[in-house]
Amino acid sequence: MTENNREFDIISIGEPLLRLSPPRFTQLRCTRSLDLHVAGSQFNVAANLARLGKKTGFITKLPSNSLCFQVVDACSRFGVDISLIKMISGGKMGVTYVEFSAVPRSPLAIYDRAGSAASTITKDDYDWHDIAGRTRFIYSDGIFPGLGRGCFEATLELFTAAKEKGCTTCFDLNYRTHLWTPETARKAWAQILPMVDILVTNSNVSEVVFGYRGNDETVMSNYVRDFDCHMVLLTRREMYTSQTGAWNSKVLCDGNILEGKRFEFDSIDRYGTGDAWFSGFLFGYYEGDLQFALDFGNALCAIAHTIEGDVANVSPEEVHAILNENSHFDVKR
Amino acid sequence: MTENNREFDIISIGEPLLRLSPPRFTQLRCTRSLDLHVAGSQFNVAANLARLGKKTGFITKLPSNSLCFQVVDACSRFGVDISLIKMISGGKMGVTYVEFSAVPRSPLAIYDRAGSAASTITKDDYDWHDIAGRTRFIYSDGIFPGLGRGCFEATLELFTAAKEKGCTTCFDLNYRTHLWTPETARKAWAQILPMVDILVTNSNVSEVVFGYRGNDETVMSNYVRDFDCHMVLLTRREMYTSQTGAWNSKVLCDGNILEGKRFEFDSIDRYGTGDAWFSGFLFGYYEGDLQFALDFGNALCAIAHTIEGDVANVSPEEVHAILNENSHFDVKR
Amino acid sequence: MTENNREFDIISIGEPLLRLSPPRFTQLRCTRSLDLHVAGSQFNVAANLARLGKKTGFITKLPSNSLCFQVVDACSRFGVDISLIKMISGGKMGVTYVEFSAVPRSPLAIYDRAGSAASTITKDDYDWHDIAGRTRFIYSDGIFPGLGRGCFEATLELFTAAKEKGCTTCFDLNYRTHLWTPETARKAWAQILPMVDILVTNSNVSEVVFGYRGNDETVMSNYVRDFDCHMVLLTRREMYTSQTGAWNSKVLCDGNILEGKRFEFDSIDRYGTGDAWFSGFLFGYYEGDLQFALDFGNALCAIAHTIEGDVANVSPEEVHAILNENSHFDVKR
Amino acid sequence: MTENNREFDIISIGEPLLRLSPPRFTQLRCTRSLDLHVAGSQFNVAANLARLGKKTGFITKLPSNSLCFQVVDACSRFGVDISLIKMISGGKMGVTYVEFSAVPRSPLAIYDRAGSAASTITKDDYDWHDIAGRTRFIYSDGIFPGLGRGCFEATLELFTAAKEKGCTTCFDLNYRTHLWTPETARKAWAQILPMVDILVTNSNVSEVVFGYRGNDETVMSNYVRDFDCHMVLLTRREMYTSQTGAWNSKVLCDGNILEGKRFEFDSIDRYGTGDAWFSGFLFGYYEGDLQFALDFGNALCAIAHTIEGDVANVSPEEVHAILNENSHFDVKR
Amino acid sequence: MTENNREFDIISIGEPLLRLSPPRFTQLRCTRSLDLHVAGSQFNVAANLARLGKKTGFITKLPSNSLCFQVVDACSRFGVDISLIKMISGGKMGVTYVEFSAVPRSPLAIYDRAGSAASTITKDDYDWHDIAGRTRFIYSDGIFPGLGRGCFEATLELFTAAKEKGCTTCFDLNYRTHLWTPETARKAWAQILPMVDILVTNSNVSEVVFGYRGNDETVMSNYVRDFDCHMVLLTRREMYTSQTGAWNSKVLCDGNILEGKRFEFDSIDRYGTGDAWFSGFLFGYYEGDLQFALDFGNALCAIAHTIEGDVANVSPEEVHAILNENSHFDVKR
Amino acid sequence: MTENNREFDIISIGEPLLRLSPPRFTQLRCTRSLDLHVAGSQFNVAANLARLGKKTGFITKLPSNSLCFQVVDACSRFGVDISLIKMISGGKMGVTYVEFSAVPRSPLAIYDRAGSAASTITKDDYDWHDIAGRTRFIYSDGIFPGLGRGCFEATLELFTAAKEKGCTTCFDLNYRTHLWTPETARKAWAQILPMVDILVTNSNVSEVVFGYRGNDETVMSNYVRDFDCHMVLLTRREMYTSQTGAWNSKVLCDGNILEGKRFEFDSIDRYGTGDAWFSGFLFGYYEGDLQFALDFGNALCAIAHTIEGDVANVSPEEVHAILNENSHFDVKR
Repeated sequence: MTENNREFDIISIGEPLLRLSPPRFTQLRCTRSLDLHVAGSQFNVAANLARLGKKTGFITKLPSNSLCFQVVDACSRFGVDISLIKMISGGKMGVTYVEFSAVPRSPLAIYDRAGSAASTITKDDYDWHDIAGRTRFIYSDGIFPGLGRGCFEATLELFTAAKEKGCTTCFDLNYRTHLWTPETARKAWAQILPMVDILVTNSNVSEVVFGYRGNDETVMSNYVRDFDCHMVLLTRREMYTSQTGAWNSKVLCDGNILEGKRFEFDSIDRYGTGDAWFSGFLFGYYEGDLQFALDFGNALCAIAHTIEGDVANVSPEEVHAILNENSHFDVKR
Repeated sequence: MTENNREFDIISIGEPLLRLSPPRFTQLRCTRSLDLHVAGSQFNVAANLARLGKKTGFITKLPSNSLCFQVVDACSRFGVDISLIKMISGGKMGVTYVEFSAVPRSPLAIYDRAGSAASTITKDDYDWHDIAGRTRFIYSDGIFPGLGRGCFEATLELFTAAKEKGCTTCFDLNYRTHLWTPETARKAWAQILPMVDILVTNSNVSEVVFGYRGNDETVMSNYVRDFDCHMVLLTRREMYTSQTGAWNSKVLCDGNILEGKRFEFDSIDRYGTGDAWFSGFLFGYYEGDLQFALDFGNALCAIAHTIEGDVANVSPEEVHAILNENSHFDVKR
Repeated sequence: MTENNREFDIISIGEPLLRLSPPRFTQLRCTRSLDLHVAGSQFNVAANLARLGKKTGFITKLPSNSLCFQVVDACSRFGVDISLIKMISGGKMGVTYVEFSAVPRSPLAIYDRAGSAASTITKDDYDWHDIAGRTRFIYSDGIFPGLGRGCFEATLELFTAAKEKGCTTCFDLNYRTHLWTPETARKAWAQILPMVDILVTNSNVSEVVFGYRGNDETVMSNYVRDFDCHMVLLTRREMYTSQTGAWNSKVLCDGNILEGKRFEFDSIDRYGTGDAWFSGFLFGYYEGDLQFALDFGNALCAIAHTIEGDVANVSPEEVHAILNENSHFDVKR
Repeated sequence: MTENNREFDIISIGEPLLRLSPPRFTQLRCTRSLDLHVAGSQFNVAANLARLGKKTGFITKLPSNSLCFQVVDACSRFGVDISLIKMISGGKMGVTYVEFSAVPRSPLAIYDRAGSAASTITKDDYDWHDIAGRTRFIYSDGIFPGLGRGCFEATLELFTAAKEKGCTTCFDLNYRTHLWTPETARKAWAQILPMVDILVTNSNVSEVVFGYRGNDETVMSNYVRDFDCHMVLLTRREMYTSQTGAWNSKVLCDGNILEGKRFEFDSIDRYGTGDAWFSGFLFGYYEGDLQFALDFGNALCAIAHTIEGDVANVSPEEVHAILNENSHFDVKR
Repeated sequence: MTENNREFDIISIGEPLLRLSPPRFTQLRCTRSLDLHVAGSQFNVAANLARLGKKTGFITKLPSNSLCFQVVDACSRFGVDISLIKMISGGKMGVTYVEFSAVPRSPLAIYDRAGSAASTITKDDYDWHDIAGRTRFIYSDGIFPGLGRGCFEATLELFTAAKEKGCTTCFDLNYRTHLWTPETARKAWAQILPMVDILVTNSNVSEVVFGYRGNDETVMSNYVRDFDCHMVLLTRREMYTSQTGAWNSKVLCDGNILEGKRFEFDSIDRYGTGDAWFSGFLFGYYEGDLQFALDFGNALCAIAHTIEGDVANVSPEEVHAILNENSHFDVKR
Repeated sequence: MTENNREFDIISIGEPLLRLSPPRFTQLRCTRSLDLHVAGSQFNVAANLARLGKKTGFITKLPSNSLCFQVVDACSRFGVDISLIKMISGGKMGVTYVEFSAVPRSPLAIYDRAGSAASTITKDDYDWHDIAGRTRFIYSDGIFPGLGRGCFEATLELFTAAKEKGCTTCFDLNYRTHLWTPETARKAWAQILPMVDILVTNSNVSEVVFGYRGNDETVMSNYVRDFDCHMVLLTRREMYTSQTGAWNSKVLCDGNILEGKRFEFDSIDRYGTGDAWFSGFLFGYYEGDLQFALDFGNALCAIAHTIEGDVANVSPEEVHAILNENSHFDVKR
């Protein structure tokens, strides 16, 4: 892990989204109102870790209109540094419309992100070496480089600079079919992964994009074999019903596989829970060992399922309470 | 089935209701607000089939005040033809107040329909032969003839005309204790059933009104024996908890019994789901064979349980997706 | 005024209504929710005076379903005695749908009251002499006898008994075109008015129903001339805009005319404000002289315009504060 | 049981609370609105029994501002006599903020009651013998004497007077850690319990405060042994999931143990359900035998879990319906 | 005017928008929810005239996802024919975020329409002659040709075809600074205006885009002089306060100038009121003479200011009532 | 003015409040929900100036429960530094319940602040010299020293240290009758005022507490005469109706009196607007001259009346736009 005395614990780069959703169970096609949350995988990680007390920054570009303040204020509220956010004239806010599910209706997400201010980020927008030198960890994910050529190149530049500056690099293999085919995703990711220290994946994306099949150990090992990632994390969400489920995760590091403590949850709002998981893992990794990191991530992810919006808006103390208790049914007075 | 070249696929006759319900779990006795949906079995069938793309019409009478536009606009929105709706001065909108349930509270429905404009329909209000000649199917149910002598006679006239014009006639044995006793219902229905091609029933009403007991096959056969219905459909809702359950249905036709594919559901709003089922069955029957009709109806009915209001507001494509998938838990992005 | 030692200060007879209204400015034709208040002129008077600390009772009949508890609970909350309310099987709750206005849209009220449980009140339902003997004042209005023959006869019986028992009788000439023509109203009212001590009217109904024209003094005098009412009250609402206005009132008693202090108001919810006025007048009449009664009524009526629902939900102290202050713009901390 | 001809069936003494809660699943830390209900164990019992038709009174003190009317109006609405409520200048309304739970988040309650008007009750505030002479039962619980020295002494005075006047005394061992330690609670309660006829407890408080361990029979017997209570009631809530569970209760009386009929429930709002249970038990005890009392209490408690707010807002008929039916899934039309 | 026997009274071409707005007075920058209405000038005209009973069609392209049904269902609800709407894969829904004003905050509108499905309309998408032959009037406005080269050319083709087929062509000079400069707008419009029969303008756009200054007569005459428009309409909104104002309009036709009856209004939702005005004018022009058309348009426009959303959701009868009455303050019962 | 190179532009000390208010026009006595905003004069000034881009800090103490995060998150969102906030166990959140007004109802505020964590601040809690040395301006007001002896002494210590460290000290004479009498307030304030550079007052408090009468010049001069304040600011709110009004302000400095540009406003939420004014004045004073400061303050105050909650949530650019425009009625697209 990078030394502790840098200005930021982690800097994330990406595209924030206005998440617009009807009240639970109402359909998008006939709703008369939409709830608004700020979302986006890369924003979520910065916000979750800031909420947990870490020093985080967020690199993005926003259109200079009233809507951009939704993002800026959300960053400020959670404690994410906003000095790396650029306001531009032109561009737009990316939007995702989401509809909650109930059996047998599937959850639904519609994206309206083409032409977003964030998608116009290019490798010339920032001094990547300066940024990398100010932070211990760097985060991005599989979505951001898919937003455009500039985003892809900026990711490459940032990760290259991060390696040079001794940052720990994190990359979550989020895959969105509306952005690219498995082939184009794989080609792009394949240039980034050799620079990734901590890789997050799951069995589905591993098969769809990389064709990796087999048990979890095999899948995780393939990433080490093909891209020499230092640490491979694999997550698994199991839904019992549309409203309840459980979460677990594993890590392959230095040839060893560890598995976290499994947590059940009520699923009030599942969006962003994977990002909460990784934020929790990283918090645990800053604070303890890998086993603690997996457990902490799983617990935070479980709580995140019960919280409206994409960010698990809780303090470390609340997660510790979950980690240490057996029953969640007694009123805390 | 009647030939395909008529103006309407189906015409339904009946009484639309303003459905007023407190927010879920709030009691009627102390609520300070009521959500408003347009409902009523006969309206529901016309609306569901219109939403699925069929040409449907609705015969009713409405009071000429602002409230009637709730019904007219709902018809228009779903695509139901409104040219057979008559506005009258005097009369009122029928209303049903419904309270949602949670164990051990039962669901509750209070009707305020006496004197509704729709209940003043008489056999002299329409040219039934003209109407019957313009549609392939005719639909009404056990409720409508119970609203008054005029409604009963109008039903008889319409079904008689329908048989003469070669329509396929459909009748769903909805029974409401606030309208009549089992005896009076049976006497009225017994005059209609010999003209019914497609009959919808369930084991409860079969026993209460007709005294039919025994297994499903026996019950269904009794209708064929006593009323010579061409096709008898029997539905079954099984509740696991107050919020989850499953639905299935069977058909007896030409001496054969088929059973549909069973669908589980989350029960957000169960009102009108039986009507959704029959609409789905009929859509399937228009488009495919009896097995497909049962399956499609069951799938639509399951979705309908997750949608607020009485009408399953979905397109055929969405039902097909349900029919073909195994898991409903992944986000569709 | 009747002596002070009776069980009730006033008993009102009439029909309570569920008042259903869209959020302000939303149209009835397209609203998806309705706010629910308990209303009805005769209920309003009993509720307002109970809220002001008077002992009031309400005579009505309600259907024995969950909705009737809306009325019973409203009575209890305001402090109206419910022992004279009868629950019957059958019947329904009267309903009024109201839409708020904004220039140039007029306010709108649709009634659905035919067949209400209250409208089935007959002269045989109560022991009118017993009731009259227990109260100092009796109240009803021009609407209630218009609900049906039984209601008219019950009003006659009650007012006859009231005169025999020495009660002070009050009658407010509310006129609703959906109930009767001016001629039928006049014929019915003409039988009641000779038994009325305190009559409430305005210039519009005086002209439409009785053909009285001329200035206020002339109009009020006509009631004394034709019906020998002891006291004639005349109210006047002046709207400046759709959201602001002023209220005043006059009394003709023993040949003298007094005019109250005029109060301006913001009009948030104008329904029931006339009933609030008379309740305030009567409270003032119990507590002071006629001038105080007019002033108190006007002040209460002004406040009532600012309060959602039909009942001016305030204590005498709050009215006194309004009566005594010049500015209403400072925060009371 | 005390004779039937007293003015009140039960008088409860205590502190009402404004219960402020975010919409279900929203966190207190980020909510922008709070729903308001009137709560407090002692209020709940008076309100529940009034709603069931019993004559109940409530002894408390309230601050003389607008907020106090929330309590007064709630009492009036449920039918609780308000003549024993004193308005004082100074003091405040006690408040409890509650957050609903979802696995793995625990339910949460934050109290803000120090300095409440009710907590300033002293033994000099009321004529306890007069009050005791007017009621058959007296109720308080473990919380009220913990609010301050005055409340403790007032409880002692009231219970002493109650014994002298032949009232049946009831005491529910509610324990709140924010009020006192187990030791201070035990010392205070130990002075009250010898005057208690009907004691309500559960296994958790029995162990924490009194150190009673063992099976239910042992625990209940200990109270008889140590404090000579006539009747000891023990309740048990079993949560299956955060949203579903079951309730049961036992009584030890005259050496015999009876167990009630177990009822399952959906948990929409669990706050106040213990109070609902005891209210139901007492209603059953007024009306029938101990077995009926347990069953009725369990049924009422189960319904109470489905009703928003602390009071189970139902009539005896609705509880009887639950007691007698097997399925709660059919619509009551 | 074109002859009466065509299939459509008017066909409008353009881009529908999802209009997302915070609750009144809440800021866009901090709102947590947005109300959703379907808007867009060209949609508004089709919807208003359909609601008034005219046969209208709407030409547009929509993305084939759940959001498009918001538009399709809105068309259906108002009665606009949807057969000319094309669903395409790719593209997005245009969005406008609007914030309501209060002095001294100005109203605010942010557009996110680049890349909308509608903006991809080209001259090759439709058979313009066929469309023109089926309708009496054609409508578009200054915005639509500004969405892209294809939209501009499609407008030219449609207007050219319209002239050949004898349609009456209507064009409203809506100008949006986010689309183009005054110069580019003028150049584009200058190619369309010679084909326009009925032109709608106001003094502001006349000066900004065309440099026309002077009194109304001069401004209107300039359009006749420069583009030979048959009829020039000029509208004027006067705001008294942020919440109240008045509307009037004039027409120059065959050298004569007429002015309408001025209507005052409460401004609840001013968006789309200009479109309502033109719809009302056109309805009046279909039904009566120019003076009636101006008056009817002004009255409809005034009502439209009181109705949430962009469409004045009223029937002709309601407008006639406004036209004929002096006061809008009496409840219509 | 203090030099520019300090860490903070301003540090405010005081008590944050949870402001709980019913929806506009609903009464506190019967509301079922409360909107929550963070308020408190001293918080408001820190938040407004942070939102305008200044570096601000807030000294307070909060109870360590979930509710305290409402304050911490509000600080973070607006950009107020939270490092001077102390979390303590025990204590509570101060609360103010506010009811909005409509003629003739007055606005209403009920405080529940006794025992708040903030009111336990003492002079021993902070290193006042260290704090004073890090900021250019210090702010508190007339309320905070009234919360308790400790708060008063802490204010004295802070202002003393501020003078020693060369800070500019600001004090707003907010007076609350629930805290103290005019005499006790005057005695306390008289010890603080000699250390105040910039004093804010109005004619009402000047008369009530200090007995200053006469025109504005006289009143302002009295403060200079008696306490030698460097700058005296006097504000004036004029209400036209309950919903509209105007604001102005004057400054007396170095013997000269300047008056600002008067701004009219719609009054959506008047709470906190005085704090917004002073924040705007101070921003203007940082950035320009005294005339600009008055004008900017007035404009910000006017906008603040239109914004829900106590903080004027706008950027300097938005205020500049108001300062420079004549009409606020045109949509900004």
